[in-house]
Amino acid sequence: MNGAESLVRTLVAGGVDTCFMNPGTSEIHVVSALDRIPEMRGVPCLFEGVASGAADGYARMAGKPASTLLHLGPGLSNALANLHNACRAHVPLINIVGDHATFHCQYETPLASDVEGLARPLSAWLRTSASAAEVGPDCAEAIANARKAPGRIATLIVPANTAWAEGGAVAASPEVPAAPLPFIGKVQQAAQLLRNGRRTALILGASIPGGAPLTAAGQIAKATGAKLLVPFAFTRLERGAGRPSVERIAYLTEQAIAQLAQFEQIVLVGAPPPVSFFGHPEKPSILTANGTEVFTLATPEENGAAALRLVVEEVGVGALQKIQLRQQVMMPSGEITLDRIAASVGALLPENAIVVDESITSGRGMMAATAGAPPHDWLVNTGGSIGIGLPLAVGAAIACPERPVLCLEADGSGMYTLQALWTAAREGLKITTVIFANRAYAILKGELANHGINAGPKALELLDLNRPEIDWVALANGLGVPATRVATTDEFASALRRGFESGEPNLIEVPL
Amino acid sequence: MNGAESLVRTLVAGGVDTCFMNPGTSEIHVVSALDRIPEMRGVPCLFEGVASGAADGYARMAGKPASTLLHLGPGLSNALANLHNACRAHVPLINIVGDHATFHCQYETPLASDVEGLARPLSAWLRTSASAAEVGPDCAEAIANARKAPGRIATLIVPANTAWAEGGAVAASPEVPAAPLPFIGKVQQAAQLLRNGRRTALILGASIPGGAPLTAAGQIAKATGAKLLVPFAFTRLERGAGRPSVERIAYLTEQAIAQLAQFEQIVLVGAPPPVSFFGHPEKPSILTANGTEVFTLATPEENGAAALRLVVEEVGVGALQKIQLRQQVMMPSGEITLDRIAASVGALLPENAIVVDESITSGRGMMAATAGAPPHDWLVNTGGSIGIGLPLAVGAAIACPERPVLCLEADGSGMYTLQALWTAAREGLKITTVIFANRAYAILKGELANHGINAGPKALELLDLNRPEIDWVALANGLGVPATRVATTDEFASALRRGFESGEPNLIEVPL
Repeated sequence: MNGAESLVRTLVAGGVDTCFMNPGTSEIHVVSALDRIPEMRGVPCLFEGVASGAADGYARMAGKPASTLLHLGPGLSNALANLHNACRAHVPLINIVGDHATFHCQYETPLASDVEGLARPLSAWLRTSASAAEVGPDCAEAIANARKAPGRIATLIVPANTAWAEGGAVAASPEVPAAPLPFIGKVQQAAQLLRNGRRTALILGASIPGGAPLTAAGQIAKATGAKLLVPFAFTRLERGAGRPSVERIAYLTEQAIAQLAQFEQIVLVGAPPPVSFFGHPEKPSILTANGTEVFTLATPEENGAAALRLVVEEVGVGALQKIQLRQQVMMPSGEITLDRIAASVGALLPENAIVVDESITSGRGMMAATAGAPPHDWLVNTGGSIGIGLPLAVGAAIACPERPVLCLEADGSGMYTLQALWTAAREGLKITTVIFANRAYAILKGELANHGINAGPKALELLDLNRPEIDWVALANGLGVPATRVATTDEFASALRRGFESGEPNLIEVPL
Repeated sequence: MNGAESLVRTLVAGGVDTCFMNPGTSEIHVVSALDRIPEMRGVPCLFEGVASGAADGYARMAGKPASTLLHLGPGLSNALANLHNACRAHVPLINIVGDHATFHCQYETPLASDVEGLARPLSAWLRTSASAAEVGPDCAEAIANARKAPGRIATLIVPANTAWAEGGAVAASPEVPAAPLPFIGKVQQAAQLLRNGRRTALILGASIPGGAPLTAAGQIAKATGAKLLVPFAFTRLERGAGRPSVERIAYLTEQAIAQLAQFEQIVLVGAPPPVSFFGHPEKPSILTANGTEVFTLATPEENGAAALRLVVEEVGVGALQKIQLRQQVMMPSGEITLDRIAASVGALLPENAIVVDESITSGRGMMAATAGAPPHDWLVNTGGSIGIGLPLAVGAAIACPERPVLCLEADGSGMYTLQALWTAAREGLKITTVIFANRAYAILKGELANHGINAGPKALELLDLNRPEIDWVALANGLGVPATRVATTDEFASALRRGFESGEPNLIEVPL
């Protein structure tokens, strides 16, 4: 068995059976190994940022890691922006990067690259395999390290000669220690805070995406009157009818400050203290008022789910939780407005849908409009690196092939990784993509105002996407995805309904 | 004057008047500064890899640096693959990256990123400005460092508060010391080698792109019978009728070994010793035979042009040089073949064209077919990171607005940075793009064979781009570029002629 085969077999043995890939010559033996290992699904991506973003979406929904397969420093470089987002999402991810044969690295060649240097800033674990015999054991360690709570990026660099040489051996992945419980005194302190009658917010991090941990949070909310929040950049949230009602912290500093001002206490479960997205010359970075007590029940590395269970025992409520009721949204009609588009989504969202939301300025009303929709999952951009939406949808759809995926995508952001549409078409994924075509980096125009800048025509033009206008119907068709442009809210609603019913990838351009 | 304005004014004062940009909130004050500084041209790019590749193409043709403007770690990450190519091209490039305000970096925010860590592997010079007053002087140093021979990447990180704060001051860029002459004994040694009657190749690096230095090389070839070569991955070459004839070293190891076997001696002028692109289990990395003497006349950091002039004085030939004659290529006809497409390009290439060649497997006959075409420039991928072609063409067209640009692009490579077509449309650039649509990563299929791998259907499918087929006409139209798909060689020829005549961006898809 060569090193490449030991790599793939070790992945499969460790429960990693999906590889989002954009290989090159130095990874060709890994590609060839897939011929002999039917358990591993290879998903080709036409750009590495699609691979890393899809691996993130897969992990968020499957609750287990996928791997990437990337080509030396440049391939890794193209994956980094969405690895940045994945890092902030606290997902497990096995990031596999090929490199030149070790004996070839001494020469000045075009593709010589400092793969370790490029991988270091975003890799919680990083190793270059030294020989074919090491590849399997290294990969097993990568899996274990990626799975360490709350989920990490483990980068394994596989020089070409360690892939092609014989002597590979499949290795079993070491046990991953459970996330440690926070110090028990913290549970008691949190319970005391939650029962002291003050207005309290419980902010939920990546380890509380839904399921029993979210139910526990809902029980705490019911028993204590606490409000449940997620950071603006959250990893995953089960929501909709029958789930606890959770509010997202606003993007805009003033709004977030006002939103948090109502709370005298904030309890963090795996979430960082609330700070503004960007710094501003005249606005605070810290979003909580001076007098607000911020208490960390669990760090992201600790077992927030277990901590919540223990708090439930302390605050004593049995099985009751405060839940969101089903709300029927009236189907709107007429000219397109953002509110009407949001209401249409609220009215038509199918049960068990996965919503990937990178709609930036255009989608601010989306979560409100879907709060009482049938139960669904919501995923957003966790790291502020735009271009995550389309890849995230690909990964989520591959993790959950039976579930409809709705990808709400801004036109500016979508342009970074539009290659994802091709993978969606190739794999026949049930993704309905809605492009909000406002033909501008609208958020940056907002930031000009936010900074009191009276922008002139030259600056404004540099933030426009309207010269030429981008034709998303043509782009989607060019990549094999049927698409339509809608002119009214009614057209949008029927396109959305058809899209969900088709069970195939499709795209709707909404000109704004 | 705030720091942002001092940044842009320092760039302009230092001769840097073009900025390929994809800014975000932390760079909004730099965008705003452009309103007050008409001398700086901002060129918006919808993906950062377009910005870095365009800055490379600009520098290759303008002979001076452009700047980028990128958004924190993620924006820089997206630019890295083409910065890798730019680094290998030895071009000067001012890489400007915004960052969070310094007071905001202490917090755990979505966009917090290790910008310096990400920039370090590819930056010859790297600094984070500490205050608004430092931005101008730092930028001036960046310019000087980027211009140090043979051309480097200088990365300046500008935290948002150093951009928005007052106290900025324009700084003059320090003198750039001329590239040092190689030790004079080396010139004499090279001259001796060149005159000793042995079969000799002179391999030209990035510092000999054309002009007087290339003429000097042609004179040496005439006087000594030496053959002129460029590495497979060369930065720029003036060629065609009336220029010295220069041969490119082949990509395939066996071919390159055979090509170099005829030489008993090799003299390097700013080029690295010839090594294979990738390592191989059974093939040598070093392309020259054991007995071949490899002599470095000048390193890339040394003044290769001056060294060649001195060698000319030693070998004594006056003004004569061995030049390529004009060759009329017969216009082919009939079904599309790669040879006929190449011959059509050879027949129709306009005088003074700039050819950007990332046609990979499909374009191997292109240089032979155009050797005797009217004088033109040829640019190729220098670092093996695919996705450089379309951006490089944008940069070259902006550097030389009067010259027609022909971009020969493989479909797989083109998909990495197709966003460049939008910038070409926005700026009205004279770029004719030819897409070789073989609907596969054909080079990797070749590598399977090269490694003796008998690939099965699963591996082969992962290297195909045909399910679905990519419709480049739709993609180009979607990005505002008129496009056509051709079915015969004759259709190709007339589309190419029309494309050159149009003076506007246009695209031709050639199905293979």
